[in-house]
Amino acid sequence: MGKFFPELSEGFQRLLGAVEGRSVAVVGHARPDGDCIGSQVALARVLCARGSPAVCVNADPVPRRLAFAARGTAFIRTEEALRLPEDTLAVFVDCADHARAGERVRQRFPSPVGNIDHHLSNSAFAAVNIVDSGSAASCEILAGIFIDLGIPIDASTASALFTGIVTDTGQFRFNSTSQRTFILAGELVARGASPPEAGYELYERESSGKLRLLQQFLASLTMECGGRVCIGTLAPNAFEATGTTAEDTEGLVDFARSIDGVEIGVLIEERPEGGVKASLRAKDPLCRLDLAAGQFGGGGHACAAGLNQKKANGDFRERLLEVLRERLRVVDAERAKLGA
Amino acid sequence: MGKFFPELSEGFQRLLGAVEGRSVAVVGHARPDGDCIGSQVALARVLCARGSPAVCVNADPVPRRLAFAARGTAFIRTEEALRLPEDTLAVFVDCADHARAGERVRQRFPSPVGNIDHHLSNSAFAAVNIVDSGSAASCEILAGIFIDLGIPIDASTASALFTGIVTDTGQFRFNSTSQRTFILAGELVARGASPPEAGYELYERESSGKLRLLQQFLASLTMECGGRVCIGTLAPNAFEATGTTAEDTEGLVDFARSIDGVEIGVLIEERPEGGVKASLRAKDPLCRLDLAAGQFGGGGHACAAGLNQKKANGDFRERLLEVLRERLRVVDAERAKLGA
Repeated sequence: MGKFFPELSEGFQRLLGAVEGRSVAVVGHARPDGDCIGSQVALARVLCARGSPAVCVNADPVPRRLAFAARGTAFIRTEEALRLPEDTLAVFVDCADHARAGERVRQRFPSPVGNIDHHLSNSAFAAVNIVDSGSAASCEILAGIFIDLGIPIDASTASALFTGIVTDTGQFRFNSTSQRTFILAGELVARGASPPEAGYELYERESSGKLRLLQQFLASLTMECGGRVCIGTLAPNAFEATGTTAEDTEGLVDFARSIDGVEIGVLIEERPEGGVKASLRAKDPLCRLDLAAGQFGGGGHACAAGLNQKKANGDFRERLLEVLRERLRVVDAERAKLGA
Repeated sequence: MGKFFPELSEGFQRLLGAVEGRSVAVVGHARPDGDCIGSQVALARVLCARGSPAVCVNADPVPRRLAFAARGTAFIRTEEALRLPEDTLAVFVDCADHARAGERVRQRFPSPVGNIDHHLSNSAFAAVNIVDSGSAASCEILAGIFIDLGIPIDASTASALFTGIVTDTGQFRFNSTSQRTFILAGELVARGASPPEAGYELYERESSGKLRLLQQFLASLTMECGGRVCIGTLAPNAFEATGTTAEDTEGLVDFARSIDGVEIGVLIEERPEGGVKASLRAKDPLCRLDLAAGQFGGGGHACAAGLNQKKANGDFRERLLEVLRERLRVVDAERAKLGA
């Protein structure tokens, strides 16, 4: 079998040399997702096994549904990270840029020794940058490098890496999912990752309240822009009425987008204090939802963006729709050009 | 690389010999799912390419969401199958037993030459039986055999096989998902299967009606057996009220199972004529839902089974609950043994 990442594996060996015998902070990004947590756990475990005491640092807590992947690995928050010994080295994982770790974490670690990531926009901010935007997940890169270098992968590490691949590929369906993604997922299963365990922990531990929230969201769906936009709204009392919290909105907007013909799905959360939070999801990156959200002080990616307004005028929905209509006009023009 | 299915591949070669130059009906089961359609398409395309005119036969139509996988492959229904030339040979795929094809199709093809399947309960009803219950999908078996034998897999065949694996593993998360499943999925991607295309066609083309049906289903969820069983019911008029059909129930039962603490999720479809159809899904194969469904004349897998009653007594729900309670008692006893 050939190497998965011959060049990156060389870089990783340099990184291993640089951290040998040193204490390491494995830094992830704020509001961590499965690929972030999985990469942190895997790298920290490998470093610990090689004699470098490693601890995972996050500005935000490990989400409940990812707790199973982080079990047995030390995670600390910003405050505690500020108290780490002065000479602690930092390796950032799954962070497109230095600031993604959160401002105070960035300041604590101004000169990262390593940066392991798969984001196209990665700014190569560390001494050793191990970046491959062709990979579906940072966990795919780490899995491939570990196997390339013959670094032992125990069952917990395999499980963490598998979790990152599953979540960052949307269960093996996003564009980035390649034959290599599948081969490495299989290698991780052979080393103890369990697809049913990951599936259970990630997708089979919903609360009844979450399903009630989904039910309310579905009941609110309305079609706009000739069926190209679908908007669902959570009323200000929705969390209270269903016994849920803001964290339970995860995934709701995908139902709005999932309808045939819909190009943009929207979730509007109305806040009791009069504000709104909106999540936007597109099927086609041409929609450039980051630009749409940007008009309301928000941001994000081409297919997934969000915004937050402390005080929303009563006509927020109309203003948002006007912006989305304009985005669709641009999309139509670009498609016409591409078709020409 | 070793062979994926050395013994089954030998059987498949015998099957190829038996059908050489003959017309073949590739028969799937009633109410076909992704693994059924994928297997039929793949086998029919391979047989056609080898000079055996093959047509796919189903008692029910190809579901809308699977149309992309069936594009370009001939599918006929029962009536047309009755008019096929007398000497047409039949290979059944993804059918646990002869009758799963539907009664009239079974009668039309009383002596199948082949039976390719992954169901544990397969009754080996054909001349050549190619069965492996360790496979996650019939499509996994076919993909492995084709590769073992060096049979060319074109992009459409790869796409069909990939679709079957994706759907029958619940997007690579059911118990049956093994390293081989991932390796073969990767091989299919290398041969032209597209994970994002499959993801879009399978999960991003829902109808508004389907989401209304989901909403009704969620509203009906009730907890039983101390929260270990969750039952959702579709009333006899549900399809009419939401503008949907029976095929739109796919996936609903997974929401009932997805709740934390729930071990068995149930969907009961009440029919206008007084019958019921029930779908059962478990998180733990110890539940052996095939046995539970079997008590009502149904069948399936340990974690996914179903049943169909033309005439249901008014107390069907209670009788089903009694059977499930018994299954949970057995599960508890087995877990106690395993823990001891």
